[in-house]
Amino acid sequence: MTEARTTQDVQDTQDVPETRRARGVQGYNPRTGEPSGPPIPESGDTDVDRVVTAAAAAFPTWSALPARDRADALESVADALDAGSEALVTLADTETALGRPRLTTELKRTTNQLRLFAEVLREGSWVEATLDTANPDIIPPRPVLRRMLRPLGPVGVFAASNFPFAFSIAGGDTASALAAGCPVVVKAHPSHPGTSEATARIVESALPPGVFGVVHGQQAGVALVNHPAVKAVGFTGSTAGGRALFDLASSRPEPIPFYGELGSINPAVVLPRAAAARPEGFAAEFAGSLTLGVGQFCTNPGLLFAPESLVPALAAAVSGAVGGPMLNERMCDAYRSGTEDLAASGLAELVAHGTAPAEGWSVEPKLYEVPLAGFAENLATLTEEHFGPAAVVVTYSSVDELLDVLPKLPGTLTGAVHAAEAELDDAGRVAEALRPVVGRLIFNGWPTGVAVAWGMHHGGPWPSTTNALHTSVGATSIRRWVGPVTYQSWPDELLPAELRDGNPLGIPRRVDGVLAVH
Amino acid sequence: MTEARTTQDVQDTQDVPETRRARGVQGYNPRTGEPSGPPIPESGDTDVDRVVTAAAAAFPTWSALPARDRADALESVADALDAGSEALVTLADTETALGRPRLTTELKRTTNQLRLFAEVLREGSWVEATLDTANPDIIPPRPVLRRMLRPLGPVGVFAASNFPFAFSIAGGDTASALAAGCPVVVKAHPSHPGTSEATARIVESALPPGVFGVVHGQQAGVALVNHPAVKAVGFTGSTAGGRALFDLASSRPEPIPFYGELGSINPAVVLPRAAAARPEGFAAEFAGSLTLGVGQFCTNPGLLFAPESLVPALAAAVSGAVGGPMLNERMCDAYRSGTEDLAASGLAELVAHGTAPAEGWSVEPKLYEVPLAGFAENLATLTEEHFGPAAVVVTYSSVDELLDVLPKLPGTLTGAVHAAEAELDDAGRVAEALRPVVGRLIFNGWPTGVAVAWGMHHGGPWPSTTNALHTSVGATSIRRWVGPVTYQSWPDELLPAELRDGNPLGIPRRVDGVLAVH
Repeated sequence: MTEARTTQDVQDTQDVPETRRARGVQGYNPRTGEPSGPPIPESGDTDVDRVVTAAAAAFPTWSALPARDRADALESVADALDAGSEALVTLADTETALGRPRLTTELKRTTNQLRLFAEVLREGSWVEATLDTANPDIIPPRPVLRRMLRPLGPVGVFAASNFPFAFSIAGGDTASALAAGCPVVVKAHPSHPGTSEATARIVESALPPGVFGVVHGQQAGVALVNHPAVKAVGFTGSTAGGRALFDLASSRPEPIPFYGELGSINPAVVLPRAAAARPEGFAAEFAGSLTLGVGQFCTNPGLLFAPESLVPALAAAVSGAVGGPMLNERMCDAYRSGTEDLAASGLAELVAHGTAPAEGWSVEPKLYEVPLAGFAENLATLTEEHFGPAAVVVTYSSVDELLDVLPKLPGTLTGAVHAAEAELDDAGRVAEALRPVVGRLIFNGWPTGVAVAWGMHHGGPWPSTTNALHTSVGATSIRRWVGPVTYQSWPDELLPAELRDGNPLGIPRRVDGVLAVH
Repeated sequence: MTEARTTQDVQDTQDVPETRRARGVQGYNPRTGEPSGPPIPESGDTDVDRVVTAAAAAFPTWSALPARDRADALESVADALDAGSEALVTLADTETALGRPRLTTELKRTTNQLRLFAEVLREGSWVEATLDTANPDIIPPRPVLRRMLRPLGPVGVFAASNFPFAFSIAGGDTASALAAGCPVVVKAHPSHPGTSEATARIVESALPPGVFGVVHGQQAGVALVNHPAVKAVGFTGSTAGGRALFDLASSRPEPIPFYGELGSINPAVVLPRAAAARPEGFAAEFAGSLTLGVGQFCTNPGLLFAPESLVPALAAAVSGAVGGPMLNERMCDAYRSGTEDLAASGLAELVAHGTAPAEGWSVEPKLYEVPLAGFAENLATLTEEHFGPAAVVVTYSSVDELLDVLPKLPGTLTGAVHAAEAELDDAGRVAEALRPVVGRLIFNGWPTGVAVAWGMHHGGPWPSTTNALHTSVGATSIRRWVGPVTYQSWPDELLPAELRDGNPLGIPRRVDGVLAVH
């Protein structure tokens, strides 16, 4: 997601005016623009140091727990959150205006995510246990080697605005890092401070002391990234904020990995026959994906390549769509000014806008149009993300011309191709053109709705993330928090259980290069 | 390895004086200090651009080759290098003075490494093929997902001075990146430019055009890291040079992963009974590891924690050891001045020095001694690496006191523990104290001699590397060059073979979370 584009923009708290910040982090009701709940005190440097120091103190014990015990602990957290669902959803709806049905589902997704990582821990292959026997006859000679992955240390997590549960206090970064054996300190998002505190209290109470902590405020985020005991950071937020924190993490005396999930334009290509087959149905689905959650998704489809003939149906669908209140005032302002600037630039034509409820920080859905040639000439400007329910439809007449332009798109989390049965060859060519710039390729579907699964990849080339090797959703997101250790010629009784003779844990292991499932 | 410590030190070419650099990169014979062979022209920015552009052009075809065909190509490279062994070893011995036996073995290790990656490609689990079936009943619903790893794009590799074959033109970084499907551009090391050119001609001739290229000169290295088409960089060299290049890579408009294998102090702990059991034998093994290859290894044991009673044997062994010529003049000067400064500092006492042949850039082995308390007080200074055959022995009287100090050591590639049968409990405690700061734990052995295997980890926490998640040696080093892509609801006929129904390649895959070996 992209909320801001200034490089001084380290994090999202600057939407809290300076005068209010002295009082703490204040939540607001997006439906009214009025304060919601008491302000939460900002964490000073000493607060951050206290929480991180507690996390560092908890690391040896938490990381040494048998993985199955950590699995039990994750399930306890999930159970406690499920038990608190009613109150959490009520609080979150007041602070985010995302609606009770969506928030109830999101919290369930969040607890299912914790349970997926319990499953990952019990399955055991996440440690990549690898055993080599000795071979003195090769060059160089090989001693007995046993390798596995171990947690890095305390992890900092920056919560997102747009998922107050699933990418926040107990979200995917937290779940995967706790699963790995890393204590977690979350920098709460200022758009839902009350929800963050309530969630944090539940998570803390379900875990050993120090294993989980929370801090509030922009300066606390900077202190968290700079703290020597923090060994990796996960972040979901704006490109500008993520880049600034990535730069901080990379320029520390001891640089640490920074996993930022940033802005994404999520191109979709509809091929001619698919467009012609059912224009109204397709347009309705597009508008549905575009306006879901007031367009406040990393996976919002902001760019659609379509035949000119589809534009009337798309315009009709967007005209009929209803917007809603955005998560905070700054996002609302950025959406309004960004989309107005786009119209004023003349680089794309506003062809439709929907309506918005007359309340708080509400915005209208918008659709812009530009022909492929004009898009290619102004690609950088026209691929800027306008976080919210706005999209640009790029009209094309030749798939070949499209193939020249698609590889020039900025890195993005997803790319979708819509094709009829008879145009699978072209779908394959479009996919090959898109693949180098996307993390997930979707066929005849929409990018919103990110499944939490072993096979999910929620990541992509810069600027969609700061590290194209990793995902922030799905089972393999645990790998961000672990590094290898190899034991050479080590006595069996001193080895971790995962590497001992006889495979006492019964986990999948690789022995002399051969993967074996117990 | 650490060769230099100034931050302006982007790469190792500054050991070529400015006046000579205009003529190109000149190799020298370390046994005489005289030029060896003709100078190799430095690559200008346009040369770098041409080579990288050719690599980018080769990427789609090379990455799309079936992995088994890339395996065949790697074996062709290995065969061609083996066939050229005689000439390559002769040239390398002139430029490095490492000796024909070592260099013959090193080249064989290099070609075995290429063959290991052919094996990795044929085995197939390196792509982590992951298939999820649809499940509409969970929250969030799961579509059909198929995930695998794909190569990132052209890779830049910085060759090391101390392994003219195994960590150079056709070394581990090159082999693993080529295996992954990434074309490679190597920045040759200036200490063996002739060997680099001769090796590069052989590698190039065995591969399709553009898949492999080489550049020479410090400025070429900077241009390589900054080139927009380069998507990741591998580096083996000094901490200062590696940090400078890491900073470049991280501050690009599009930051890219930089995998630097840097300095390492490689602590070894000998417990009292192991020390008492056979002091002379132990000391001889220590001196052998310390002086192997004139101490020019990343894994050289630069720090030994031992009972005071062992020092006479250690001193005797080092006194009897013979040094040799270092790889280049700057390294030789740095070793001499660094070890002299250490003696002058009074922080540690010079207790023994060996002899050196009266030729070229030869240096003597040296052993310093400091009690544990004094070491702890000056830990930062006393853990500086003096690249070459020098070590500090830290005397201790209590294992408990040792346990307080070991976790404060800087991140390092290896840690060794020497223990008798009766002191395994203490060995376990020492290992736990060392584990957070090391990548490989060795029992009753020495760190030099890095096996190339599935279970090897050659990496570690900063400052031993810039990224503790990865290894530069062994099968899993391929992971540095690949990122995931997920295909959602994708037609089977458009999927890569690795992900198709029925597993046509017969590779290990994970289906709905369950790992299955074909």
